[in-house]
Amino acid sequence: MPTGYRHTRDDVIYPEDEYELTEDGRIPIPYRRTAKYRDGNTIDWLHEEGIERERNHALQSQAGIRGILLPALESARMWFIVIVTGMGIGIAGAWLDVLVKWLGDLREGRCSYGFFYNSNACCTGLDPGEVCQEWQTWGNYFHVKSILGNSMLQASIYVVLAIAFAGSAALLVVTYAPHAFHTGIPEIKAILGGYVFDSFLTPWTLIIKALGLALSVASGLSLGKEGPLVHVACCMAYLLTRLFKEFRHNEAQKRRVLAAAAAAGVSVAFGSPLGGVLFGLEELDTFANESDVMWRGFVASAIAAVALQWVNPFGTAKLVLFQVTFVSDTWRAFELIPWVTLGVIGGVLGSLLIKLNVEIALYRRNSVLRDWPILEVVSVSAVTAAISYLIVFARVQTSELVANLFQECDPTKGDYHGLCNPTATLENVFLLCLTAILKIVLTSWTFGMMVPAGIFLPTIGIGACLGRAMGLIMQSLYRAYPTAWIFLSCPPDPSVRCISPGFYAVIGASAMLGGVTRMTISLIVILFELTGALSHVLPIMICIMTSKWVGDALGKDGIYTVWIAMRRYPWLPPANYRDSGETAASLMKPLNRVVVIEDGVTTVGELQDLLANYDFHGFPIMDSHTEFVGYATKDELRTVLDRLQLDQNEVDLAKKCTFSQNRLRVAAEERVDLSDALEDSIIQLRKEVPQELVVNMFQKLNLRQILFTHAGKLTGLVTKRDVVDLLTSHFPHAAALSEHPQQHS
Amino acid sequence: MPTGYRHTRDDVIYPEDEYELTEDGRIPIPYRRTAKYRDGNTIDWLHEEGIERERNHALQSQAGIRGILLPALESARMWFIVIVTGMGIGIAGAWLDVLVKWLGDLREGRCSYGFFYNSNACCTGLDPGEVCQEWQTWGNYFHVKSILGNSMLQASIYVVLAIAFAGSAALLVVTYAPHAFHTGIPEIKAILGGYVFDSFLTPWTLIIKALGLALSVASGLSLGKEGPLVHVACCMAYLLTRLFKEFRHNEAQKRRVLAAAAAAGVSVAFGSPLGGVLFGLEELDTFANESDVMWRGFVASAIAAVALQWVNPFGTAKLVLFQVTFVSDTWRAFELIPWVTLGVIGGVLGSLLIKLNVEIALYRRNSVLRDWPILEVVSVSAVTAAISYLIVFARVQTSELVANLFQECDPTKGDYHGLCNPTATLENVFLLCLTAILKIVLTSWTFGMMVPAGIFLPTIGIGACLGRAMGLIMQSLYRAYPTAWIFLSCPPDPSVRCISPGFYAVIGASAMLGGVTRMTISLIVILFELTGALSHVLPIMICIMTSKWVGDALGKDGIYTVWIAMRRYPWLPPANYRDSGETAASLMKPLNRVVVIEDGVTTVGELQDLLANYDFHGFPIMDSHTEFVGYATKDELRTVLDRLQLDQNEVDLAKKCTFSQNRLRVAAEERVDLSDALEDSIIQLRKEVPQELVVNMFQKLNLRQILFTHAGKLTGLVTKRDVVDLLTSHFPHAAALSEHPQQHS
Repeated sequence: MPTGYRHTRDDVIYPEDEYELTEDGRIPIPYRRTAKYRDGNTIDWLHEEGIERERNHALQSQAGIRGILLPALESARMWFIVIVTGMGIGIAGAWLDVLVKWLGDLREGRCSYGFFYNSNACCTGLDPGEVCQEWQTWGNYFHVKSILGNSMLQASIYVVLAIAFAGSAALLVVTYAPHAFHTGIPEIKAILGGYVFDSFLTPWTLIIKALGLALSVASGLSLGKEGPLVHVACCMAYLLTRLFKEFRHNEAQKRRVLAAAAAAGVSVAFGSPLGGVLFGLEELDTFANESDVMWRGFVASAIAAVALQWVNPFGTAKLVLFQVTFVSDTWRAFELIPWVTLGVIGGVLGSLLIKLNVEIALYRRNSVLRDWPILEVVSVSAVTAAISYLIVFARVQTSELVANLFQECDPTKGDYHGLCNPTATLENVFLLCLTAILKIVLTSWTFGMMVPAGIFLPTIGIGACLGRAMGLIMQSLYRAYPTAWIFLSCPPDPSVRCISPGFYAVIGASAMLGGVTRMTISLIVILFELTGALSHVLPIMICIMTSKWVGDALGKDGIYTVWIAMRRYPWLPPANYRDSGETAASLMKPLNRVVVIEDGVTTVGELQDLLANYDFHGFPIMDSHTEFVGYATKDELRTVLDRLQLDQNEVDLAKKCTFSQNRLRVAAEERVDLSDALEDSIIQLRKEVPQELVVNMFQKLNLRQILFTHAGKLTGLVTKRDVVDLLTSHFPHAAALSEHPQQHS
Repeated sequence: MPTGYRHTRDDVIYPEDEYELTEDGRIPIPYRRTAKYRDGNTIDWLHEEGIERERNHALQSQAGIRGILLPALESARMWFIVIVTGMGIGIAGAWLDVLVKWLGDLREGRCSYGFFYNSNACCTGLDPGEVCQEWQTWGNYFHVKSILGNSMLQASIYVVLAIAFAGSAALLVVTYAPHAFHTGIPEIKAILGGYVFDSFLTPWTLIIKALGLALSVASGLSLGKEGPLVHVACCMAYLLTRLFKEFRHNEAQKRRVLAAAAAAGVSVAFGSPLGGVLFGLEELDTFANESDVMWRGFVASAIAAVALQWVNPFGTAKLVLFQVTFVSDTWRAFELIPWVTLGVIGGVLGSLLIKLNVEIALYRRNSVLRDWPILEVVSVSAVTAAISYLIVFARVQTSELVANLFQECDPTKGDYHGLCNPTATLENVFLLCLTAILKIVLTSWTFGMMVPAGIFLPTIGIGACLGRAMGLIMQSLYRAYPTAWIFLSCPPDPSVRCISPGFYAVIGASAMLGGVTRMTISLIVILFELTGALSHVLPIMICIMTSKWVGDALGKDGIYTVWIAMRRYPWLPPANYRDSGETAASLMKPLNRVVVIEDGVTTVGELQDLLANYDFHGFPIMDSHTEFVGYATKDELRTVLDRLQLDQNEVDLAKKCTFSQNRLRVAAEERVDLSDALEDSIIQLRKEVPQELVVNMFQKLNLRQILFTHAGKLTGLVTKRDVVDLLTSHFPHAAALSEHPQQHS
């Protein structure tokens, strides 16, 4: 037996003893056909469905009460994981919020009566108007009297702690869980689409990503917690699936659970249970395939939101993060002009941010930075902290900035850094635009460094700055020319409010998000649930429409799609593909380039060599006249060969492998029957079919390969990788950041 | 030539002269392959996509500027239809609202200074608190002084006008457009899935449905306008598609436009632009297939909402129909008990309503009622009006009732029929339950009569009554025992509000809708946009979850699915199908029951007989050794035969038809080459594949047939109809109301 074969066997994820052999030493039916994938593979949905099907039939055919109870237990396990994941991520999300708030506040000061109180908790129980004495800035705490000394101390603690937080996040990630960097959404999209990436979902990744996320968010780097929370939720669900055999052994079932977990993650990240479901529907593109999956996502999402609300980290008992209270419930037609303009700006800047981010990622990969990831994080966080400290709007956490920018000016509530001062409009607009530009540059750099980092919140921050600036401009125009024809629909008295700059900030955030992520429906729902701005659904829709249109004109893909292409994950974009007249023949790997097994000709020894030498997922089987017989995966072939060895102790390597009735041509003592290894679900096409149809079938049926035959003869094969390469061929940097070596069929 | 052939030719929808023959008398490429379907057929998506593909390539391959302009023009036409339909349905919806309001008010009285003013328009411009003198009840108008005489007059005018309105609606529908009855959603689901039903979308149907809808809603029958508005929107889009050749000639393109129109219809019906998109996504199950379609639905939906808001029929400038203003923004955990109870009640009563509706529909079909549709409508409307007049909550239009039930009690706004009187709780609960029961019975009967009728609003009404009753019970419990442990989380002072009965009504409506329609996500979004109750997303989600679970346990299908099954439309439910071990073989029509064409054997005369005698959509072609050659649709075969006749004047009927290289075996003068008629996109499977996979492929790829081969030999065929029959086999009354005769493959 070739050593290659042995060696690969050791890599198998599930050791043999988990099979629970039956009394006569055979592998029991439900577990017999077990797929064994390694990281970097793509699962075969049809094959996994086949396993599931066999399992279900085996369970249902159990006699008596077992035949009823066992399937019910199956489904109960699925729901158990969904519900526990929902609760887990809800609670984890809430406590992460608390941790981030405390770490963030620590950069400015401490609570006099307890180190572990954040500024809000420290100052509770005060009467309105009373000044909080309990929260001490570091200057106060160290009794620094001089103003200069005070600000120097504040600034240096601010910067040093930022560096410490970001550095330790990077250290954790680099040392313990390299996969915990970045947002995680591209990987999860790929995993849900069938990519095998188990090391991305380990318990270590879970812990490091959660801890690192808290540290990196608190460090004030330009990043958000939204995407990474989805990753954390998926890690939790994955951990739970390890408890049950039927999930460990079935990659399709595992993905169904992960989809629900991802929805729960979004639900917690934005406090948006409905947005979570729609994110799963639109961005993860998983629910389209099965209504059950959507249903479970729905439940997980609701439970996660309940758990979050129950923990109630900040005592507001509200899911709406950035409550928006508009003074007027109506909007006026002329406002569509600035709003559509914001949409255009969002589309342009969103595409710019994506391009910049790609260039920086390529530079990072190909320069000396590659070897110094922690140093990079430390330097960027130092620069971020130093610059941010100078600009008043950039100094606070992005979430606080956004909350204030979304707020309308209200004389009774106090003015946020002079934002409502009508005489300082120009300064404010300048500062806001400066903050936006700074954040675009910093975000492009930060998103891709070795720390957990989401893109959502910084994008909202950039958009909110731009939107608020536009709102301030419109407001000052209105104040200057209240009787101009464009403002005719406003009340003639300029002291009455007509323009709501806070809502302009919401519009700006929508535009920017549309430009960066290219999401539509789920984005709108998330923005509603985030702001409560239901009465203004139409402007948000129109603005997202515009920004998506403009963005698509400047570059077809959103930032997640771009990262998927760069890392070369085998993920099929759901976009409509239109060929320009090609047939499948131009995509197909012709027969002479395919490794095949010949029915009744290939010997057991040759087969073992094939299995050891080729990294293909499976092999087509044909007879000596190129007549197509079937397809068998490598794993099935191995399982069947193993079983033969169990039965017969030693298989004669010179015996011929047969798969069909052709075995009659080979004498009984000269052959071994491997027909058990044949796949049931084989899709055959003719090579004359339009390429569109082939791509479409891969997209909708989640196939791994299609075999091409003509008049019963095998002519070639197309794998998922071929289709992915076809669909990403327009993107210049495809596979630039690919981790795994070139995968074969 | 058999006369049957000629005869069928006359039925062809698009006359020959539309082909725009080229100078040499040939049919130009883009229009050559034209599908001709008749009502009751199912379209072949792959075939239609093929036509579209050929058209696109023909357009793009045009030289110079035409090659750029023509494809752009194509896409511009699509957008033109989407935008015009959006605007059209927005405006039509607004004016229908005005018409309904006026007709409805006419049943109670008239405006003294103008017959065509409704009560609101008549009483505008009054100071708050001033009593409207201009709106006269009929008693006032006819100067009837005695109280008895007055109420007799009011009641009789109320009943007589109800009968007149409902009767004329039924008369219009029965006489001019029988397809304008009912909601239209089941038909639209079927049409979007590929069913051909052009007579359902004619201009006549459009006019009658819109007019009849206004009349039937104003008559006070227990029905809503929501579903029919979707039908009206689709009729509008269909009318617009008739303007452009590429839509007339392509059923797939037509359906893409109709999907956007349906979304716009929902958007207008509920004032819910986002709900429209999600309705398309979840209930119509069309957007899942193509992101472009979702995108167009999104635009159509937004434009329709803008148009509605622009017309602004009631001067509120708000899309939110039933604005809910909660006194408290928070809810308490103990409230989940009554809410989940409402969910259970909604699930049970929803299933009951569906079952009752089915029984009544079957009774109507099989009894004498079938011949007296107008009389039935008149009697039911008389009964409805008479009973409704007696019950105070049933007397007003359902939309007004719902708006009031959703409203919290507010001492400054006046009490709606004593609903807020704390001493009359028991009477109110009794009246509300009575109204709900009455409405369940009336709705079950009304939904299916020969008038346009939607199920949404009555369902909301029933649910709101039940929910409000539950809220009143909880409120009086709280008032009686404010210190009980269950109310511990409420403020201890019972004069402070803790329970919001208005929100209980919203929950009740959600539960009932969940039970009747079995929608989830889109329902939640529609309810938000309808009520503005964003802060209470979680209770609504939990309640809909419960009611769907309970409802599914009592009967798997929602009311639309049930009607589709009863009318036997070839629509595939998107539900996951799990076989119990069957393979495709058990579903397949075996070769000996399939009519096939033999390559090189069948003569032209025999082929013409085949085409004339069989109503199949197409025929598989095999050679004399049952070796599979291809598949050709009837229409393609006819087109190719026609072309032969054009070229050669007279085709010898004894010549053999050849489709492949087998023609070499037949002498050149003895054969005609029909290989042009072969379909490009043919899906072949082996009959050993699991039934699940076959069903899955039909669902996801929108197939019309799958051919089964083994080692190149044809073994059988499965059509969409076979799969539909398989999936509806669990429903006892499948095809009970079928209109069209049994369709063949």
